Amino acid sequence: MTKTNPGRFFEDFSVGETLVHATPRTLTEGDRALYTALYPTRFALYSSDPFARECGLPESPLEDLVGFHVAFGKTVPDVSLNAVANLGYAECRFLAPVFPGDTLATSSEVIGLKQNSNGRTGIVWVRSTARNQTGADVLTWVRWVMVRKRDPEAPAPAETVPELAAAVAAEDLVLPDDNFGFQNYDFDLAGEPYRLDDYEVGEVIDHVDGATVAEAEHMMATRLWQNTAKVHFNTEAREDGRRLIYGGHVISLARALSFNGLANAQAIAAINGGSHANPCFAGDTVYAWSEVLDTAALDVPGVGALRLRLVATKGRQETPRLRGEDGKYLPEVLLDLDYWALVPR
Amino acid sequence: MTKTNPGRFFEDFSVGETLVHATPRTLTEGDRALYTALYPTRFALYSSDPFARECGLPESPLEDLVGFHVAFGKTVPDVSLNAVANLGYAECRFLAPVFPGDTLATSSEVIGLKQNSNGRTGIVWVRSTARNQTGADVLTWVRWVMVRKRDPEAPAPAETVPELAAAVAAEDLVLPDDNFGFQNYDFDLAGEPYRLDDYEVGEVIDHVDGATVAEAEHMMATRLWQNTAKVHFNTEAREDGRRLIYGGHVISLARALSFNGLANAQAIAAINGGSHANPCFAGDTVYAWSEVLDTAALDVPGVGALRLRLVATKGRQETPRLRGEDGKYLPEVLLDLDYWALVPR
Amino acid sequence: MTKTNPGRFFEDFSVGETLVHATPRTLTEGDRALYTALYPTRFALYSSDPFARECGLPESPLEDLVGFHVAFGKTVPDVSLNAVANLGYAECRFLAPVFPGDTLATSSEVIGLKQNSNGRTGIVWVRSTARNQTGADVLTWVRWVMVRKRDPEAPAPAETVPELAAAVAAEDLVLPDDNFGFQNYDFDLAGEPYRLDDYEVGEVIDHVDGATVAEAEHMMATRLWQNTAKVHFNTEAREDGRRLIYGGHVISLARALSFNGLANAQAIAAINGGSHANPCFAGDTVYAWSEVLDTAALDVPGVGALRLRLVATKGRQETPRLRGEDGKYLPEVLLDLDYWALVPR
Repeated sequence: MTKTNPGRFFEDFSVGETLVHATPRTLTEGDRALYTALYPTRFALYSSDPFARECGLPESPLEDLVGFHVAFGKTVPDVSLNAVANLGYAECRFLAPVFPGDTLATSSEVIGLKQNSNGRTGIVWVRSTARNQTGADVLTWVRWVMVRKRDPEAPAPAETVPELAAAVAAEDLVLPDDNFGFQNYDFDLAGEPYRLDDYEVGEVIDHVDGATVAEAEHMMATRLWQNTAKVHFNTEAREDGRRLIYGGHVISLARALSFNGLANAQAIAAINGGSHANPCFAGDTVYAWSEVLDTAALDVPGVGALRLRLVATKGRQETPRLRGEDGKYLPEVLLDLDYWALVPR
Repeated sequence: MTKTNPGRFFEDFSVGETLVHATPRTLTEGDRALYTALYPTRFALYSSDPFARECGLPESPLEDLVGFHVAFGKTVPDVSLNAVANLGYAECRFLAPVFPGDTLATSSEVIGLKQNSNGRTGIVWVRSTARNQTGADVLTWVRWVMVRKRDPEAPAPAETVPELAAAVAAEDLVLPDDNFGFQNYDFDLAGEPYRLDDYEVGEVIDHVDGATVAEAEHMMATRLWQNTAKVHFNTEAREDGRRLIYGGHVISLARALSFNGLANAQAIAAINGGSHANPCFAGDTVYAWSEVLDTAALDVPGVGALRLRLVATKGRQETPRLRGEDGKYLPEVLLDLDYWALVPR
Repeated sequence: MTKTNPGRFFEDFSVGETLVHATPRTLTEGDRALYTALYPTRFALYSSDPFARECGLPESPLEDLVGFHVAFGKTVPDVSLNAVANLGYAECRFLAPVFPGDTLATSSEVIGLKQNSNGRTGIVWVRSTARNQTGADVLTWVRWVMVRKRDPEAPAPAETVPELAAAVAAEDLVLPDDNFGFQNYDFDLAGEPYRLDDYEVGEVIDHVDGATVAEAEHMMATRLWQNTAKVHFNTEAREDGRRLIYGGHVISLARALSFNGLANAQAIAAINGGSHANPCFAGDTVYAWSEVLDTAALDVPGVGALRLRLVATKGRQETPRLRGEDGKYLPEVLLDLDYWALVPR
């Protein structure tokens, strides 16, 4: 009998079951410092306790993506160890901030199954929820992955395909705290003067700066989230001998680069969906641009939301462009992320 | 007069003297975060405050090897700066957990001396002890190193060779706290269902995963422990221009990889001995396997101990194997470590 | 309209104006741990809470250079984004220690302007001040940079060239705390036995050790200080495709290496000036030596100050040497820093 985790195969999942993921994680100021060392982030809300207090929070929370990466990483051994592909995510909502000292534990409910026509793989949908030490929901999202079958002869399960929203509705966005607000917002300390109304739908912002990724950086980041996917760490895991950079590393890099032009897009309130269009490797220089997809005034004085497309590219594009004439992502596009951020209005 | 530390030579040691090592070190959540970023560790006891509290501790301690590396690093400038070889260690006992905020100070007593027949080197045995800010012993161990003589004509000291135990006896293992126990142990959160009785002597567990080491990673780790041995940091220190990876880095890597199959081997209670069989360099992909050497039920309800051989290899062996037909370590074997871990029973 | 920061050009500065720099930064134990992982530092005052308490501080502060790098980094987007050259700094005084939890915010006053005769660039002098969350001054310094003009036809401003002291006077040095002192100083724990009087003016100390820099290390450090200068992170920013290492990284490396021979030069009280004589790149092995420039007994029992020249070199010099026969820095000299450190007397 082997005691090591072989991962779940397609026929091991059943709709309605709950997977309790191992190794809850207490997050601390150490995680914040590493996040700052690994990504060029400068959002004031996540950098300064006094600034966070002026926004109605008791102290500066950890960046929203820290919680996302940790919660996501926990699901890997149980959901995607035998995944052929990560197909997508949706309905990701940030429900409570993560403060240093908070502990996240994650579980997932299987909400969909569909065997592929080849009979050798299937698609698994899970809704994952991270809760903190008080039991409060911190983060919830749906992801779907293509998973290998252990036995191609195993019967196909009943097909269940969940309906997923194309985007979280603005009125469903949750603020970090009942006292959260931007009444005392200091635009000088935040770094830019722009409010909700300064952004218009369709506007594209080139974030200018680029970051060349080193091997040690993406491995340290991915380990910090306790993500165990072999391809990120082991040159013997892929035929080409290259370590594939965790997609979330590219998200965090692009989000940090977006400070330059979106310094006031302080908090991430939801991720509507995302595609990792092409693989990223050490040595690549990552640039980013954003497109304003929607704007919304929230039901709280002074707070608005920007729906943004955040695009990461390998090398800088002369003109921000997502797809070629064939409708496919351009080869230099690494990431196409659709999310909501909270901004002063 | 030079003010820099030339290190001690063989004739500078005398049996019975105590060396007070410089730079006590306050350990914090920052050290934990870096440990998590540098090693793929997922043991729940060291990752989650609530999990640790369910085991009877006030909060999650730092990984036992953090204390070991820091305490060990302190001894380098006084003991092994002029070492030709690190020959071994023994009787390493973990006597108290290290919590964030604790400060470790280390001193060593010289307990043995033996000049080599060549007259140019000798062996020095020291028993080192790390104490925390309350004066409590946290860690104690014996190591012996071969040290150069400053003056080959200096007379040989009286020969003293200490008797060392082949292994710490199970009944001498110290639990992290009087309240420590596994009564409330959550096997789902820990990641695996196995208890003491599920392991049998002679069982071998292949931990499957591998990690390819980057230069920046091992240097950051080794600096974090304030270990000053030149060969780890300076390409000009060895004739081959390569930076030798600190042996403790390989121990931590292998221990972290062993989670996969030994997720419940939570705490390290003792290290009986270890050999760094071959050098490790950046670019090597480190794998690990374990062999169960002994099992013991401890005198506390629900707590047992596994004596394990932890082996790190460069590249994955088809079949776990330690030595060739000549009785020597195989060239791919990096580490052969003999330790006791606490597990639920 | 672009929303990204194009940086200020020479004609955007006017004498007397104050620039409020973005993104205040709360510093924590996470920053300390990363500092320790990135630089081989072992000064006891910054490593151990009990040691710091024996020196009259409530706990161990962060290394003085942490505050310097963070405060300096903040000024980059507003002062030197379009800089052609960083020309120098002076009158840098450390006025209060930075403890974990403190938040630094930085602003700069423009104190000098001088257009160059080519009409295309000019020199800008700013006096920058970092304050903590109580409003107390933590750090103040002057730097001057050569900045491009946006429009070469723009009229030259009135010329104002500030007078700057060649060195901070010993009697103007500020101690970290009213209770600061070395009466209970433990030389064993500090690592060396030398007091103020053991050093003499003109004495040169070769710090022996070297550190070969990895790409990930200097980028992580520079990001940690939220320094955004492109040349440190982006292989596409310079024609030679190399990432220039932030000069402050070399300062911290050299200062940490100087422990070996200057273990008791605990606190940095002032930086009188500095030159980054030659660029440093990953792969370089950095060594350091110091020259004692001055000594002073301060007006506090047991406390003295050493004025030191700290020199970093690429590769180890056989004999410490700063300049060639032509009076220019030797090509292997990376850094020539003039600072005051507090030592027991």
